[in-house]
Amino acid sequence: MGVVVQKFGGTSLADPERIREVADHVARTMKRGEQVVVVVSAMGKETDELLHLASQVSKTRPGREMDMLITAGERKSTALLCMALHDLGVPADSFTGSQAGFLTDTTHMNAKILEVRADRIRDAVAAGRVPVVGGAQGVSTDHDVTFLGRGGSDTTAVALAERLGGVCELYTDVSGVFTTDPRVVSVARRINRISFDEMLEMCAAGCPKPAMRAVEFARTHGVRLHVRSAFTWEPGTWITEEEPDMEDAIVSGVVGDDSEAKITITNVPDQPGVAAKVFRALASAGVNVDMIVQNVSEQGETDISFTLPADELSTVLPLTEQVANEIGADSVTPDPSIAKVSLVGAGMKTNPGVAATVFETLAANDINIEMISTSAIRISVVVAGDQCDRAVSVLHSAFGLDVA
Amino acid sequence: MGVVVQKFGGTSLADPERIREVADHVARTMKRGEQVVVVVSAMGKETDELLHLASQVSKTRPGREMDMLITAGERKSTALLCMALHDLGVPADSFTGSQAGFLTDTTHMNAKILEVRADRIRDAVAAGRVPVVGGAQGVSTDHDVTFLGRGGSDTTAVALAERLGGVCELYTDVSGVFTTDPRVVSVARRINRISFDEMLEMCAAGCPKPAMRAVEFARTHGVRLHVRSAFTWEPGTWITEEEPDMEDAIVSGVVGDDSEAKITITNVPDQPGVAAKVFRALASAGVNVDMIVQNVSEQGETDISFTLPADELSTVLPLTEQVANEIGADSVTPDPSIAKVSLVGAGMKTNPGVAATVFETLAANDINIEMISTSAIRISVVVAGDQCDRAVSVLHSAFGLDVA
Repeated sequence: MGVVVQKFGGTSLADPERIREVADHVARTMKRGEQVVVVVSAMGKETDELLHLASQVSKTRPGREMDMLITAGERKSTALLCMALHDLGVPADSFTGSQAGFLTDTTHMNAKILEVRADRIRDAVAAGRVPVVGGAQGVSTDHDVTFLGRGGSDTTAVALAERLGGVCELYTDVSGVFTTDPRVVSVARRINRISFDEMLEMCAAGCPKPAMRAVEFARTHGVRLHVRSAFTWEPGTWITEEEPDMEDAIVSGVVGDDSEAKITITNVPDQPGVAAKVFRALASAGVNVDMIVQNVSEQGETDISFTLPADELSTVLPLTEQVANEIGADSVTPDPSIAKVSLVGAGMKTNPGVAATVFETLAANDINIEMISTSAIRISVVVAGDQCDRAVSVLHSAFGLDVA
Repeated sequence: MGVVVQKFGGTSLADPERIREVADHVARTMKRGEQVVVVVSAMGKETDELLHLASQVSKTRPGREMDMLITAGERKSTALLCMALHDLGVPADSFTGSQAGFLTDTTHMNAKILEVRADRIRDAVAAGRVPVVGGAQGVSTDHDVTFLGRGGSDTTAVALAERLGGVCELYTDVSGVFTTDPRVVSVARRINRISFDEMLEMCAAGCPKPAMRAVEFARTHGVRLHVRSAFTWEPGTWITEEEPDMEDAIVSGVVGDDSEAKITITNVPDQPGVAAKVFRALASAGVNVDMIVQNVSEQGETDISFTLPADELSTVLPLTEQVANEIGADSVTPDPSIAKVSLVGAGMKTNPGVAATVFETLAANDINIEMISTSAIRISVVVAGDQCDRAVSVLHSAFGLDVA
């Protein structure tokens, strides 16, 4: 009999009624004869509230103490869900990350799992009980409480599924992974199956769920993921190894991301090692550079553009100006209002015309392309920020993704 | 160099500003060269809020899960206080009850401490750091999270002071133990020193702070307690072994408690074993009987009255009626509105006139006495509920306790 790890996010557990509904679903799954292990996030917006509380108390906010604080949220939801399960006659036990055997490194706020010693979880399952594990937490090699970071509950769930040899269901407030954001394009379709590689490209392109780190972990260890709704309970999107029937779709999804900004360095002397100098300096400062484009050289000079998270623009700009000065470039131009629009699809590998269709479609709709970047299964273009939604919409339509 | 364990209650940590003020005080204590260990309760009313949340989610509320839930409160306050201390340049580390070495039995909601393995706390102190320990919590011999019960943070603090060989300061929202409730009698005086025995009698008589269990623990292990204010920071009340100069005061304090009710069983056949039958039945049902008075027998019949917590009256009354029926008593009369007024003082032992003065004082003020109960250092009388405050006031004055 297989184990199913069911992970519930904050919205799924936002209030007492929701907690009881989740308990109902777990109980129904048990009744079908499946062995369930549950992973929970903190209730609703609790993690944000704890972060706000910390900012009211302290300026320094040391990582060790932030982790102790934040993990209190999941602790509450594990206990409450267990109580609701008891009410339904389902024996259930809460476990902190430490009790569940999550041993991590000592990197607070963003700890990495070193090992999962899941003996207590395995024993509980063998005894016919439902273990409810606090997500995104563990205990470090220094015996301190650690937090795996935002979205870390997905990772907890995947790691447990790997240990216990089961599948992993990620319950959320949407009913799966969509061909694009249904709030932007009302005719977006839910994807029934998608490969790990495509899902990773979509995460990298800005698709907010599931957490990229959990998808990577699942791909490495071959854990089948099922992203589905904790509100309608209908089947959602399976994320699995690439299968033959997946090759039908050329493009699986379109992702718009308007959270980035662009910086352009103009009239850079075109000498070997200049680009390296710029990006080594940015990397040393911990800047998260995404796309990089360097123009063709004209008269020994070139332009270099790159994108970065918009909220890092104000700190990165002076740093870039300093480097530009050192390498003898003319000027640095920031653009805080851009959007990255990405098409992802395993079928692109064998369909060379996709890029051309993208460019034609955008041109026909008077949307100017500022940067282009591609991988084997992804094409990303940067457009003006206020054209993001329209670009997503026309591309979604052009590649036949709209609901019939 | 001695260790001082400073315990802060919920009101002392109610909001970010209060947490910073407590951090200031801890930092000042460190600057004086003392080694500080801190114990914290949950912020403000958080424990009550968690209990309310549990009651919204579940009817069964198993103890193991309640303990996991409630202890999240102290976890938050430990982390937040540590952050505030870091801001002041004071190195501090939070510890859960488990991390602090509190090993308990498996009685959830009201666990007993079996052992305190304070190695991590001792190491932190030796390293010049301030350990901040979550109060009222531990880990059971089954490796589960346990809660020591309401007021358990006082016990945590006393137990740590015993282990580390230090004194224990209990910071609260009043500036010490008073001769009576200053909200009732405005001329109440703060007691500078009181013996463990007197303090225990005052706790038993209804004095809400400090927690009786912590005072018992402190008496057994000879830990000096200092109850004081986290708002004015002035010196408060020392609770210590009885000292020669304490014998001056005949009466140390007057405690009024209107949270009790009375039940009278009338015309009970006066045979051996009848009282035993009544109170064995109540004890088996877990009823917390306080005072018991049996009148002199008249014509082979007697009346038995006892007091109990008022909120247990509705469940105890039918049980009492059943027992009364079995033993052939006439009737059962409940009185939900009574008050117990107690005088406590080590000097009573050698001053036989105290009881007489109590009765005379109440008579002179037209306050009728319904029941009387005494110990070596305490006299308690039951009066009508609406006369409680006046009885406390006139006795406080009669025994010279009013501020000069």
